[in-house]
Order: sequence, then C-alpha cells, then structure tokens
Amino acid sequence: MVKKIKVEKSAKGIRFPGNWCFCVGTGRLGLALQKEYQDHLDIIQKEIGFKYIRGHGLFHDDVGIYREDEVDGEYRPFYNFTYIDRIFDSFLEKGIRPFVELGFMPSKLASGDNTVFYWKGHTTPPVDYEKWTQLVQATIRHFISRYGLKEVLQWPFEVWNEPNLPGFWLNADKKEYFRLYSHTAKAVKAVHPDLKVGGPAICGGADHWITDFLNFCHEERVPLDFVTRHAYTSKAPEVTPHFYYQELHENTYMLNEFRQVREVINQSPFADLPFHITEYNTSWHPLNPVHDTVFNAAYLCRILSEGGDYVDSFSYWTFSDVFEECDVPRSQFHGGFGLIALNGIPKPTFYAFKFFKSMDGEVVYRDEQTLIIRKEDGTYNILAWNDVMAKGDGFEKRLEIELPAAFCPVFVKRSTINEQYGNPWRTWIQMGRPRFPSKQQVSILKEVARPLIQTNSMDPEDGWLRLELTLGKNEVTLLEMTEIRDESHTYLGLDDNKVPG
Amino acid sequence: MVKKIKVEKSAKGIRFPGNWCFCVGTGRLGLALQKEYQDHLDIIQKEIGFKYIRGHGLFHDDVGIYREDEVDGEYRPFYNFTYIDRIFDSFLEKGIRPFVELGFMPSKLASGDNTVFYWKGHTTPPVDYEKWTQLVQATIRHFISRYGLKEVLQWPFEVWNEPNLPGFWLNADKKEYFRLYSHTAKAVKAVHPDLKVGGPAICGGADHWITDFLNFCHEERVPLDFVTRHAYTSKAPEVTPHFYYQELHENTYMLNEFRQVREVINQSPFADLPFHITEYNTSWHPLNPVHDTVFNAAYLCRILSEGGDYVDSFSYWTFSDVFEECDVPRSQFHGGFGLIALNGIPKPTFYAFKFFKSMDGEVVYRDEQTLIIRKEDGTYNILAWNDVMAKGDGFEKRLEIELPAAFCPVFVKRSTINEQYGNPWRTWIQMGRPRFPSKQQVSILKEVARPLIQTNSMDPEDGWLRLELTLGKNEVTLLEMTEIRDESHTYLGLDDNKVPG
Amino acid sequence: MVKKIKVEKSAKGIRFPGNWCFCVGTGRLGLALQKEYQDHLDIIQKEIGFKYIRGHGLFHDDVGIYREDEVDGEYRPFYNFTYIDRIFDSFLEKGIRPFVELGFMPSKLASGDNTVFYWKGHTTPPVDYEKWTQLVQATIRHFISRYGLKEVLQWPFEVWNEPNLPGFWLNADKKEYFRLYSHTAKAVKAVHPDLKVGGPAICGGADHWITDFLNFCHEERVPLDFVTRHAYTSKAPEVTPHFYYQELHENTYMLNEFRQVREVINQSPFADLPFHITEYNTSWHPLNPVHDTVFNAAYLCRILSEGGDYVDSFSYWTFSDVFEECDVPRSQFHGGFGLIALNGIPKPTFYAFKFFKSMDGEVVYRDEQTLIIRKEDGTYNILAWNDVMAKGDGFEKRLEIELPAAFCPVFVKRSTINEQYGNPWRTWIQMGRPRFPSKQQVSILKEVARPLIQTNSMDPEDGWLRLELTLGKNEVTLLEMTEIRDESHTYLGLDDNKVPG
Amino acid sequence: MVKKIKVEKSAKGIRFPGNWCFCVGTGRLGLALQKEYQDHLDIIQKEIGFKYIRGHGLFHDDVGIYREDEVDGEYRPFYNFTYIDRIFDSFLEKGIRPFVELGFMPSKLASGDNTVFYWKGHTTPPVDYEKWTQLVQATIRHFISRYGLKEVLQWPFEVWNEPNLPGFWLNADKKEYFRLYSHTAKAVKAVHPDLKVGGPAICGGADHWITDFLNFCHEERVPLDFVTRHAYTSKAPEVTPHFYYQELHENTYMLNEFRQVREVINQSPFADLPFHITEYNTSWHPLNPVHDTVFNAAYLCRILSEGGDYVDSFSYWTFSDVFEECDVPRSQFHGGFGLIALNGIPKPTFYAFKFFKSMDGEVVYRDEQTLIIRKEDGTYNILAWNDVMAKGDGFEKRLEIELPAAFCPVFVKRSTINEQYGNPWRTWIQMGRPRFPSKQQVSILKEVARPLIQTNSMDPEDGWLRLELTLGKNEVTLLEMTEIRDESHTYLGLDDNKVPG
Repeated sequence: MVKKIKVEKSAKGIRFPGNWCFCVGTGRLGLALQKEYQDHLDIIQKEIGFKYIRGHGLFHDDVGIYREDEVDGEYRPFYNFTYIDRIFDSFLEKGIRPFVELGFMPSKLASGDNTVFYWKGHTTPPVDYEKWTQLVQATIRHFISRYGLKEVLQWPFEVWNEPNLPGFWLNADKKEYFRLYSHTAKAVKAVHPDLKVGGPAICGGADHWITDFLNFCHEERVPLDFVTRHAYTSKAPEVTPHFYYQELHENTYMLNEFRQVREVINQSPFADLPFHITEYNTSWHPLNPVHDTVFNAAYLCRILSEGGDYVDSFSYWTFSDVFEECDVPRSQFHGGFGLIALNGIPKPTFYAFKFFKSMDGEVVYRDEQTLIIRKEDGTYNILAWNDVMAKGDGFEKRLEIELPAAFCPVFVKRSTINEQYGNPWRTWIQMGRPRFPSKQQVSILKEVARPLIQTNSMDPEDGWLRLELTLGKNEVTLLEMTEIRDESHTYLGLDDNKVPG
Repeated sequence: MVKKIKVEKSAKGIRFPGNWCFCVGTGRLGLALQKEYQDHLDIIQKEIGFKYIRGHGLFHDDVGIYREDEVDGEYRPFYNFTYIDRIFDSFLEKGIRPFVELGFMPSKLASGDNTVFYWKGHTTPPVDYEKWTQLVQATIRHFISRYGLKEVLQWPFEVWNEPNLPGFWLNADKKEYFRLYSHTAKAVKAVHPDLKVGGPAICGGADHWITDFLNFCHEERVPLDFVTRHAYTSKAPEVTPHFYYQELHENTYMLNEFRQVREVINQSPFADLPFHITEYNTSWHPLNPVHDTVFNAAYLCRILSEGGDYVDSFSYWTFSDVFEECDVPRSQFHGGFGLIALNGIPKPTFYAFKFFKSMDGEVVYRDEQTLIIRKEDGTYNILAWNDVMAKGDGFEKRLEIELPAAFCPVFVKRSTINEQYGNPWRTWIQMGRPRFPSKQQVSILKEVARPLIQTNSMDPEDGWLRLELTLGKNEVTLLEMTEIRDESHTYLGLDDNKVPG
Repeated sequence: MVKKIKVEKSAKGIRFPGNWCFCVGTGRLGLALQKEYQDHLDIIQKEIGFKYIRGHGLFHDDVGIYREDEVDGEYRPFYNFTYIDRIFDSFLEKGIRPFVELGFMPSKLASGDNTVFYWKGHTTPPVDYEKWTQLVQATIRHFISRYGLKEVLQWPFEVWNEPNLPGFWLNADKKEYFRLYSHTAKAVKAVHPDLKVGGPAICGGADHWITDFLNFCHEERVPLDFVTRHAYTSKAPEVTPHFYYQELHENTYMLNEFRQVREVINQSPFADLPFHITEYNTSWHPLNPVHDTVFNAAYLCRILSEGGDYVDSFSYWTFSDVFEECDVPRSQFHGGFGLIALNGIPKPTFYAFKFFKSMDGEVVYRDEQTLIIRKEDGTYNILAWNDVMAKGDGFEKRLEIELPAAFCPVFVKRSTINEQYGNPWRTWIQMGRPRFPSKQQVSILKEVARPLIQTNSMDPEDGWLRLELTLGKNEVTLLEMTEIRDESHTYLGLDDNKVPG
Repeated sequence: MVKKIKVEKSAKGIRFPGNWCFCVGTGRLGLALQKEYQDHLDIIQKEIGFKYIRGHGLFHDDVGIYREDEVDGEYRPFYNFTYIDRIFDSFLEKGIRPFVELGFMPSKLASGDNTVFYWKGHTTPPVDYEKWTQLVQATIRHFISRYGLKEVLQWPFEVWNEPNLPGFWLNADKKEYFRLYSHTAKAVKAVHPDLKVGGPAICGGADHWITDFLNFCHEERVPLDFVTRHAYTSKAPEVTPHFYYQELHENTYMLNEFRQVREVINQSPFADLPFHITEYNTSWHPLNPVHDTVFNAAYLCRILSEGGDYVDSFSYWTFSDVFEECDVPRSQFHGGFGLIALNGIPKPTFYAFKFFKSMDGEVVYRDEQTLIIRKEDGTYNILAWNDVMAKGDGFEKRLEIELPAAFCPVFVKRSTINEQYGNPWRTWIQMGRPRFPSKQQVSILKEVARPLIQTNSMDPEDGWLRLELTLGKNEVTLLEMTEIRDESHTYLGLDDNKVPG
C-alpha cells in the first residue's frame, strides 16, 4: 500500500488542540497513597503532562473521609481529611488538578449492601440526603480552606459514575440519580456559585439518559456546568479465568459517538456547555491484553488526532496499572488499562501519547493515519500510524510525502514503536511471561520499552522536501524536523576522511 | 566473511579478569572540582565502576597544595588541602580510589620556567629536594590523617609522568629523574614502609628507560613496588588548526608492547612486581576525532579482551572530555579522549567498556574478534566486534556459533553499537556539528548514544544452541543469555490469538 | 537533686550492645506500599538503622498473596506475590530485613468470621491445615527464589501474634495454637532445615504459655529456634471517644519481665535459645498521647540502656504513625505508636533512639538515668535522662561528673530534648492542635522537632574532666566529646580582638 | 536598655520592598563551573532567592571565550562559549539571571601586563577597540541565540569594575574608561537598542567620577540605562600574613552614601535612571574575619531595612566563600565574603537575609534596630537586631512592643541568631579552628549554624498584643505570627492531664 501526501504551499490550519491531554483517568483515589502510583504519575507528568486527573473513590472508606463518632448514643459525622490531603497535595505538586468525581457512598451513609469491584465501592443512594449534602459541602469547604478558592474554582465536580449501569448505581435508577444530582449540584453551588458541577457520567449505549438529564436540569432549574459521558469500543467479552477477550469496533465508532452526543447537547437548552468524555479506551475491562499491545497505540492515534473536533476533553482510562478493580494485579502484564505497566514500564500507548505531545503547531495535513503540523520555525512534525486489527503478518504501508520547504536543510529525528521496538509486552512473552519479574528483567523491559530512534539530515529539492516512509503493522512513527545551521565551515582543517574506520 | 565458532562441551577456562577496569585516566585533578566532571564520573562509576583513577596535577598550582608565607623575610611552606580534600572525598564517595601521580612541580618549587599544556604544568626539577620531600610527606601524612592508614595503603604512588619526554621533564634527563624517583620513593616509605611507590611512567618508544630504571633501583636499593608505562597506537600526526589526524598501528601493536615490557621486567631483579599501563588509547592527542568514533570502540575491544594476559592493569586515557590540555574544549565533539563527551553524552567506547562489564564468567572461547564466557547458571554471554580501519562501506562479518546447551530455552538480549546505532558523533554531524548544542540537541544526542537493544528467545536443538550473527562495519555487539522459566501455563485461558492486532 | 558520678581510671566495661536497634515494629505490611510509609522508613534507616522490621498482615487480604481460581468448579490456590515483592524489595533496598510474622489468616482460608482491628485481620485457625502449609511453603520458596537462600536464612519466621488473646486467636485456644505452630514450624523446616522458626509471640501476663510452649516443643519434637514475647507497661485504660488514657508501671516493670522470662527459658530444655521481645512500648494502644511526649522518650531510656542485659532484641512498636489498627489517623498527633509522626515529623522518642546510636563504645558507667561510654580515641559520650512520671513543674536534676582525661582538651557537643526543645507535640498544641496542618505548619513542626544543640570546649584539670549538667523534667541529653587538635597557632597574625563586635 | 514600641491602630505603610534581594555578588564566573559553587547557589536560591547575580571575569581566560586561531600567519578571533553556556545555563536553571559585568580583558586583547588578584584578571585597555567591540557583540549575540531576545533584554550589562582604582584599570585613567564605556555601550546597543547598559561601577570615595561620567554620557550622547557604584564601610586595614583587620564606620555611613549618590544622579540629566549598588559589604577584603561573625549580620540589618529607600538594588558581595581573589581559601573560616562558608555552612549573615525574606508585607513600624510588617491576614512579623560594634559582654537590649490585634490568639515562632546560636564560627573556634574539617566536624557545624527556634501562643488583651523581647549582643531575632484556629474542641475526651509526665 502506498499513500501519497502533498502539502500545498498555501496550506493553513488551526493549531492542533490539547483536548487529548486535558485529563487522564486513575485507579481509585485511595491507591494514590501508594509509592508505585506516585512514581508512575511522576513519569506521566514529566513526559506527557496532563492537566487533570479523574478517578473513583473520593468518598470510599479507604480514603476515610466520612466517619461517625458515637457520643451519648448519637452518631455525629467526623470528616477525616488526613489521606485526601496527602493525595491532592501530591497531585498539585506534580502539576495535575483533580477532576473530582463525587462518589461512591461511604459505607456509613449507604442505604444498602450493593458494592462494585474487588474494593467494594458502595453503590446505593445515601441513607440520608442531608448527611450526603453535608459531606459534600464539608469536603469542598476543606479543599477551599487548604488550597484556596481560586484553585478549587478550577476543579470540575462530576456527580457519580455510570449511574446507567446497575453495577454502579442501584437498579440504574434514573430518577434516583437525578435526585442525587440535584441535591449534589445545589450543595456544591451553595458553597460557592462559581464552582463547576456536571454529569451524568454515563457509559455508552444509553444516550437517552443525556437527553433526559438535560431536560431534567432545564425544567427543574438544577445547576449544570458541563456534560460527561464515557466511551469504549469493545464488544461483548469472552471471559476466561485470567483474561477478558473482546473484539473491537473500528475507531471511527468512538468518534461517531463523540459527534452524536455533542449534537444532542447542541440541540438542547445547554448548547454551549462543555462536553467531557471522562473515560475512554478500547476495552472497558482491566484484564484485556489489548491494552498492552502496540495495536492499542496505533488504533487510538486516530482518536487522539480527531477526538478534539467534537469534545472538550477525553480522558484515557487509566494512566497506570496500579489498579485494583479486579483484585491486585497478578502479573507484570495482565491486560490492565495503564499507560504505565507495573514496575514503571511504559506501554506502547504511553509513547503514542508522548508523540502527540510533540504535535504542537499548525495542522497542515490530516488523514485517518497521518497528522502533519508546521511549527513556528517553518519545519514540520509528522505523525503516522498503521493500525491493523487483523492477525497475521504483512500489512506494511508506504507513505510518500511532499512538503514545501521554507529553508534548507533539515535534521530529522524519527521515533518508532512497532512490533519489534517499543514493545515490552513482546519481550516479556519471550522471557516466559514472568509474573513477578526480577529486577534485572524489569531493567531489560524498561530498556526495550523505548522507541527506536533514527536520525538523518535532508535537503529539499526545488523548494520541496520529499520523504518516503515505510510503516510496519501497527507502527506509530514520529518525525520531528529542526532547521540545520551548519557550522562545519568553522572547523579549520576538517576532513573526516582522515579519521580511521 | 563467515566465521564458524564451536565451543566444545569440555571447554573450560579461567574467569575473565578485571584488569581492564582496574584504573581509568582523568584530566588534571583540578578539573575534579567541576560539576560537569563529577557528573561524568557518576555515570562512569554507576555504569562501569573502575577501582582507581589516575591523572596529572596533584601538585599543580590550581589544586593549591603548596604555598609559601613570608614571615620576617623568610618563606615558610604552607600546605593547603582545601581543594584536594574536596577532590579525593568525591572520588572515595563514588567508590573510586586515587592512583596517585606525584607531580607536576608547584611553581614555587620549580627550578625553571618550562611548562606543559594549556594549563602550564611545571616540568622542571625541584629547586630544593628537601622542600619537595617535605611536600610529598606532608601531603601523604594529611591523606592518612583524613582517610586512615588502611585506606591510603591501598593507593599506589607513581613518581612523575613521562620523564622520557622533554615536554614533561626538563631535557628528558634520565639521571635527574632517577634522582627525583629516589628522593620521592624514600620520602614515601619514610611515612610508612607499606606504602606503595613506583615508576617510571614513561611513554612508548623508550623501553631502555625501563631496563635502566630497574637496574638503578636494584643497584641503589631504592624502593620499588610496581612498574608503569604508557601505550598508544597512533603514528605521526598531521596537524591542522583544529584537529590532529593520525594513522594507527594494528591493535596487536599495543598487545605486543604489553608483552615485551612484561618480559623485560620478568628478566630483571624485579620479576615479581606488578606492571601497570597507567595510560593507553588509540591516539595520544585530545584533538583527534578517532576518539569519538565507533571504530575506536571496536578497535579497542581486542585490547580489553587480551590486555589482561600481560599486564596487571591498563588505564584508558581518559574517562571524560572535561579536559584542558589543549585549551578549553571548543565543541560538543572535538576529538577528546573521554569515554563521556561534554554534556554527559556517552561515546561508543563507553559502551564497549560497559559491554565488557557483563563479561563476568569463565572464558570458554576467545579469538581476535570474539569473547565468550559461561556464567554460573550455565548460560553464555557473547561479545563480538568487527573492527575495520579502512574507509568505505561493506565489511560485514557473519558469525555462526554453536554452544553446548545446559538447559532450554534461553532469553537473549542483544545490545549493539555500530555506524547507525549508539553513534552520537554521526547524529551530531547530521545536525551540522553544533559547537554549543542547545538543550534539545543534547537531549537527542543522549537518546541516540544508547545501543540498539533487541531481544529474542531461543531453543537448543540436540543439546546445542546455534546462533547466526551479522556484524556491520565496526559493530560491537553483546549477547546476554538468561534461562527462561516459562510461566505461560499458569495463565488460565491464555490465547494471544484472541487479542486484536 | 544532685547526683555525683565519678568514673575511675581503672574502669573497664563491655561494648554497649546493639540489641536495642536489632528490630523495629511496623504497621501491617500492606501499609508499606504507601509512599508516606516509605518516606518515614527512609528517615529511620538513615538516622538510626535497624537491622530487622516486624509487623502483622503478611497473609492479610490487602497484601493479596492467597487467592483462589475457580476451575471447573474446583478452587485452586493462586499465590500472588506482586505486592509482597514490592514491600520486601523496599525493605532490603533500605538495608532492613524482614522479621517475618506468619499471619493473619487469608479470608479464603479462615475457618470463621472473627477479625481484629479496623483492617479486619482474620484470627481463626485455617479451615485446612494442608492449604495453610502449602501457603507458608509457597511463600518462603518464592522468597528464596527472589532473594536467594543465603538471604532468607537470615530472616526469623515467627508464628502468629499474641495467640493468648482472644482478639488475636479464636478463644485464645492454646492447644490450637500449638497445633498451628507445629504445622507451621515443620512446614518452614521442610523448605530448608536451616530456616529459623519461633514463637509463641504472646503478650505479657500469660507467661505460663511460655512454659507450656517450651514443654510442648520439647515433648513433641517440634522445631524451635527462638522464643518471642511482647511487653508493655501500661495499666487499664480510660477510654474516651478519641483517646485512650493509661497510667504506667515504672520502667523497671518491663526490665523485670525481660529478666523473668529469660529465666524461664534458661530453666527449660531450650536454655540456649535466643529470646526476642518482638513488641514493646509504654502503652499498647495507638490512641494514647503518651507516645507523642518527651516523657515517653525519657522513660524508655532506661529500657534501651539495660534491656540488652536480658534479651537478644526488643522491638519498639512502631517506627511510624502510618498505622491503621484504629482507623485512619485523624490528626497530626493522635497518640500513635510511631517514632515518626505523620508528615515525617520525628517525635522525642525518635531522638532518644538516635542518641543511643551514638553510644558505640565501652560502657564505663551506667545507672538508672545515666550511661557513659568510652570511645576508641579515649573520649567519652554521656547520655543522661530525667524521667518524671508525675505532673507538675520542677523536678530538675543536677549531675556532677568526673572522668579521667586521656588528653586535653575536648570539644563537647550537647544535644537535648526536653519540654522546650525537640518537642513538636507542644508546638502543635500551641498551634491549636490542627488536625490537618498546612505545609507551613508542617515545616515549623519539623524545625522544632530537632534537639537543641550546644557546643563547648573543655580542658581537663589534673587529668580529670569535670562536668556539671542540669537536666530539666523529662530531659534526655547527649554529650559527645571529641579530641581537639588546636590549629590556632598556624594562623599567622590571628587576633580575634581585632574583629569588630 | 529598654525600648518601647507601640504600633497605632491607624498605622499604614508601604509594602517592604525587595531591593535587598534583587542581586547578589559572586566570585569570578569561572568558579561557577565548580560543584561546590553550584551547591552553595542551590542553597541560596532555595532559601533566599535573589533575582540577579553579578561577578567579575566574563572575559577572563579561564572562561575561555576569546581565543585566536593562527591561519596563514594571521590571527583570527575564535569565540568559545562552552563554559559560559554551562555557567549561564546553571544560573537560569536556578532562577537567577546574570547581571553582566563586561570585563576583564582577555589576555590576547590586553594592551599590557597589569593584572589583578591571585587569578590575574587583565586590567589594561584593549589593544584594539574594534576587536573588543566584536567580542562584546559576538558574546551578546550568542546569548540571544541561546536564551532568546526576551530573556537577554532583562540582563543589565555593566561596563568594567572599579575603573577608579589603578588595581582594576590601568592608572585609573578616567578618560580611557569613558572611551571604553562609549565603545562598549554603543556595541551593546548595536546588537539591540533595548538592551540595557550602564556604569561606571566605581568604588566609594570617588563620586566625582559619577558626576563626570553622567556629564560625559550626556554630552557625548553615549547610551546609559543605569548607574552603578560600590559601597563598603571598612577603614584602613591592618595587614597580617593571614588576615586583614579593619575598623568599621557606622552602618549609617553606607546609607548616607546611597542617599548622596542618588541625589547626585537626581540632579543630573539622568535623574530618572535606576541606581544599583553592585557591591556592598562591611569589609572589602576576603580575609577579614568580620564576615564570619554574628556582628556582621546584626550590623547589616539596618542597611537591609533602609537601603531600598535610596537605591534600586544593593548586591551583597558575595553569596559564597568559593572565591579566589586572595588565593584558594586556606581554611573552613578565613574571613571570606560569603553568605555560605566552605562545605555549605551558612554564616549568620545568611540567616539575616533569610529573615528579611519573611518580611513580606506592609511596613507598620521601623526604627534603626526594628522592622515590623503587617501581613495580609492581619498578623505581624517582627525583625529586631542589636548590633554592637564594641568588644566585651553585656549590651543586652529589651523591647516592649504593643501591636493592635485584629483577632485572637496568635501562634508565634521566634528564630534567633546570636553569639550562642546560629554561630558556626564560634563552634569552629571551640573545635580548635580546623583548617580542613572532617566530615563529622562539618556535620556539626551545619547543625549549629541553624537559628534557635522557639514557639509560643499569645492572647491579645483589650485588642492589643503585648510582647517583651530580650536581645543579646549582636542578636538578630525574627518573630513570625500566624492566626490560631483552635481545633482542640473537636477532640472528644481531650484531657492532657491524663497523659503521664
């Protein structure tokens, strides 16, 4: 397959937007106490740099905010911020703000025994909406006291998670969710009217909830500052003891969802509200090995490239395999959501994100497997991918690219991940899939996780740079150009031919 | 070219000796005050780990040990250890001991104006041997006071540097050197009889000095604990304003020198003394670009592999391009001796050394371009190189290796440097040879400096592991094997075919 | 009160033993995943340096070792070492080894619902001793595989915790404990006969268990390598919603216990076995503010000074307030056991331990409130304390000490904690007891946590050094002497009177 | 002595200005390559945070910028930025910008042999003003290329140093200096007209130079953006082999100089120009022990408090004892200028500066030994000092301060340096003035260098806070208040009387 691309001299475009790195998902907040979690977040923020982080479990018992003291036979609420302070301090120190999900229910406030996940998040409505309101308000007031109003005004508050699923909200009771939302949104606004609150945080396949939710808020005059939804492209799973296997829809499936729901909002009384995809990934299950593959990286590139056309942000679920929804991870690679695997090993999708970080400039070309930007100095960065869902070998792709050249020559750095390079999962399989790798094995996995780096210099001909690229199956490759200011003439007596070898 | 290698099942060998990493050279000691120097030494010690470090300039004015106070018209010596304490503290903290070169002359003690190098090391005999003796003793006594006798007894003390060259010692006056040696060796032993002292630290081409020196010490009963000499393989230079170009002898030239001088010592009254090569490299000039090349790495491998057959240590000159013998370096790459280039960029020769660090085991095969060791667990490490001094393309080499397999299967990690990979000098040329690269350029040079890493798993057939390797021109490649304990069977439901892509 | 102390010139003594820093207690092992825990352990190991660490919860569900897979309706054990590897790796990296407590019961193996603590450690016997045996063996085999046999042979394995209390072991059933011990000890020895196993880890007040246990092991020929017990000096608590208050016995109460139980062992068939106090403190409750006081430090000094006379080790319970037995800590100071309070603030008892770290030398004097050692260079360190359990002001103590002076003069550094200095709890009360202090408050608490440092120089008279010390209530003070080598005479023109001010 | 201070409720003031921390002096720029220098600068920037740094030696040979290549018998300039890039990179990474002093003369451009200092800075006019101009321009163009125009526009460029002294400028030739200034200023402006250039950088006692310089610039239309001068308060020295001793003027002497020269500028055609004191200290000699004393700190407080009334900045000479004007320092303390002594030990003056860092608020009271500010939250910080130039004991000072209290109560942290605390020089004398202290001695000196910290809480009476302070001789003490929000009532069952001890 050969694809020819020519960027016209007149090409103009908008600056490539940063919606793709606005927010990232995390395992439940209680895990943020862990050192391994913090180490992974350090890597993520240093190398990519998201603005917000969103996860479950703010009010889960392990964070420990809601407690009760018995005094004279009466139970008084006690709000313990020891752990959440440590967690949010750590986020802000790393330059990432909380995108606050208000949930799940503290066990002392739960009206039933239903829970979700290995870690037993309570999913029933509050036994007393007044106590819930007080909890929400005491918590936000504490945040303002500790971090300042100016800071907390920048934190979105989202009410609950996927209430349209009975696993996450008792009976997926829509009316009860609207009640929860109404109480919570008003509680937030009572603390300060400029705080931002939104919902309904539903998963895909239930977009009538969006319509109903927007109508409800409009009719009942309930505050609403942004709309949220999730998106995954996996089909029904084949369940085995240690893995979930799923086929996937095309990546356009997700882009269509983004577009369609944005359209629903546009048609509603809340046409101007931001729309955040507060979770997305290929599979929605943390035991699906697809998350560990190079394919996952290549497949998501189109969504990273085009998602920002439709939504204000989309938050990859999740940044790290420090995650416990299906129990403590049992192996170095196990199908977890993370951009970073256990022991700090970046997965291919991590590098796809990092490559996008370089795409800071004016979009002069974009197709379903290519994104080209022109930078301030007139040189280009090219990101190309070759996602192939089918099994088997082959599937190479050739690109021939012509770019108008503002000057000459250019230095080109090419960074590549594919089946051979930047693929620690493959090396780990070669190692015999060690569940608990030795330090030496971890060290090798870190080495092989890096992209292949190749460099070159290029001269334009007739004002055009002409490149030919070959992409292997599921390869993601980034070309970064910089202007060459040749200083060779300043070396008196320079003659490389006189150097042996 | 195809080379077939077969290791017999009965193959036995000695443990590969560590003489190659016993000692490393450094720019003058005063440079050890610099942060960049310390950063490079950190890298070196973390990744390779030499036991000793040797450089010029202990008594040079910039370290500042020897001073004089004028009191009532008389000049009294003052010994200032402020800087040397800082320097030796830093060495010991990094786990490397000084191999102490006693020299050059403090300006206040110099009997003439002759100096060497940009930094003007004084090269004349002491104006007063008594004051020199006091200086040597006061300095060593201070070392003992600060670091303890037990520590200092492990430091060799070498008298002067290359006295056989008029540049380093006035008129290359042999008799005067023997006088200096005699005074100094006795001064050292007077501090403590178990301190180790040696010489004559000559460069190549003057081995009659060795004979004369040994005779002198024997006849005059002058203490001598070890013999030292230098070795370079470069021929006469072509000098240009910014570079020295030199052809090289074959690497066997140096090995022959090692052997011949060892023979001279063996025939002398000091047959049992250790013999240290306290400097070696290809070229002896810090503006020869050969030091920056992959060729330099490949060429030296045979010396690293076989040098220990003849000498007790051989000390690569030098670990870092933080070096000023020919002025402050004027460019990122400029032909400096260092294993580490400016800005902390490892050169190919650095990785050749690092690869040798992995060769910790029993030598079961060795030829002029191959070294194979068997490790405790029965697996092998293979180091192979393809040094080609000629210019031009081609020169590929194929290796077919058969190894008796103790078990099955093995994981193989291959690390490679060649013209394409692990070659920052080449990328820097592509960049237009920026003299003072930007931080972004430095970051790229660090990335490309790393070896190419490839991994695989192998199954023996009939009790034999059969490998085929292709080595490009001047490639150095390391294969490290580890036993695979396959845990795949513990994953219930494992089926990679169900993973998309 | 004045106390006169004179050390005779003929005084000789043994080297002060390190039993006091052999082992330290920790909150349940699952907490070792937390970053705050690791930060505190870094401080502890850098400043004090214990050899072993012991805590509950190796087999608790949060560490996640024991799991079961359902395969064809059958439940197969699955051993997950992801977390325990991370935990023990971190210990060994910090130079501290596990003193392994085998317990509590994984929920899948528990024979009942009884649990202990906020974190619900299961306290019932295994539902199947065969599965328990397999769990113990699989775990130890994994340790050997990961860390090497040589390493693991240095880890003591202790069976269960305080089985003489019904809270920790169903019905405090002694016979059932002996059964557990027997199965476990044999399981350990079956992995390797040189592994060390011991018990019965009882709390105080039940020493007939010791007698019975030793008899049982002797009669039944059950392996036993060491004996363990706990010790606290607190009386019955007054319980309030947020605090436990307790009066204390004198500190000699604990020393008597050490002595008496050692005597019991001496009289048994296991007279030669080591005896480890695997937990001790003043109060056994983590909500008793005594742990935060200077009194706690002064009171324990005698035990640190004399405990080693009777027992092979005594392990302070615990090194850090990262601890959850009574829920997530609700405040900066809350009465936790830790040497280090939340946010990395050292408590007075931390400094008492650190002071003892300096007592490395020959004991030349010891009384109930003083310890004097002579160091290799002939100078002395003096540790003195003035523990006062009563409330109220006053209680100053004066010491007059005469020491034979080997040389003159000496530099003296005095480090002091008392009510005024080294007392962050007091400053925190002045701050209004902020539960979740700001970063600025934490920074101040760290500053005030440090001892007061005073320095001086002293000249002996007639071969004697004469010191007078005043100790305030509950003061702990350390004097460290070093020889002065006066270099003032080397400063030409020195005259401090010419310096203004 | 008792001083009563009452701040009226109506007191209003300006925000205390930051002129005192605008700039700091440094040893010659070449020393910035040293690790010890960088370590000290890290401390300074972390704890105090200056905006600019100024030192000699930009064009000195050791930085190596100006070199010449001989090509066909002709000498071509070569500009080597290897070291200056490393130096300025390090400054900017630490958040401090260069206040660029253009000087001294590269040896290749010097018209004579005159040099200054141990390190031999050339002090003669350029042999060729054209080459000087090219050097200045090439250097600034390189800075712009590396750091961006926006950055470099914020760097003041000062021409030469103390040309009114023959030691620094041949014959102190004013006319020749004006020539140098004119060439240089025009060279700078030719690179970019918005670059800032100034002079004449004279020392005290020659203020007619200022008048003449301003007239010259006005008449000759030479660019001038700021005026600079130095200021020291020491009288004629008594010179000894190892020390310079000097009496000092009162500190008002310096404030008067600031005021008078500002007045001169105000009366000139350049009335609006900024006036920078680019060097000041007590003594101008780096072997005067006054710099190491607590007196130096107390004495300078008034200048730090009031200097900003007259000048735009005043730059303490210097931040570190890494300094070589009078040879390599020969001792831990030797009278160096530094805020930080060798081995990273802060001197008392360091803490005086750090205390001023806390004085960020509205000045409500100031006298010659007191500064009181009110912070945003209505609480106060009080800085008081008791400088006493006379020798001898006594000189205590009592302060009684009344402050209107906005609320109640307050927490007070008092930080103190005086003869007893925060005085490492004194402890070092007790140690016997070790020239090259051991690591253990350095560690003690760091401990004793810290201020004494005391804390308390205070309740206002009748709306007034009443404090009594006693200051010892040469004490500098800082009181920092913060509002107390007492949470004691939230502790259920709290009763400190139930805690033993």
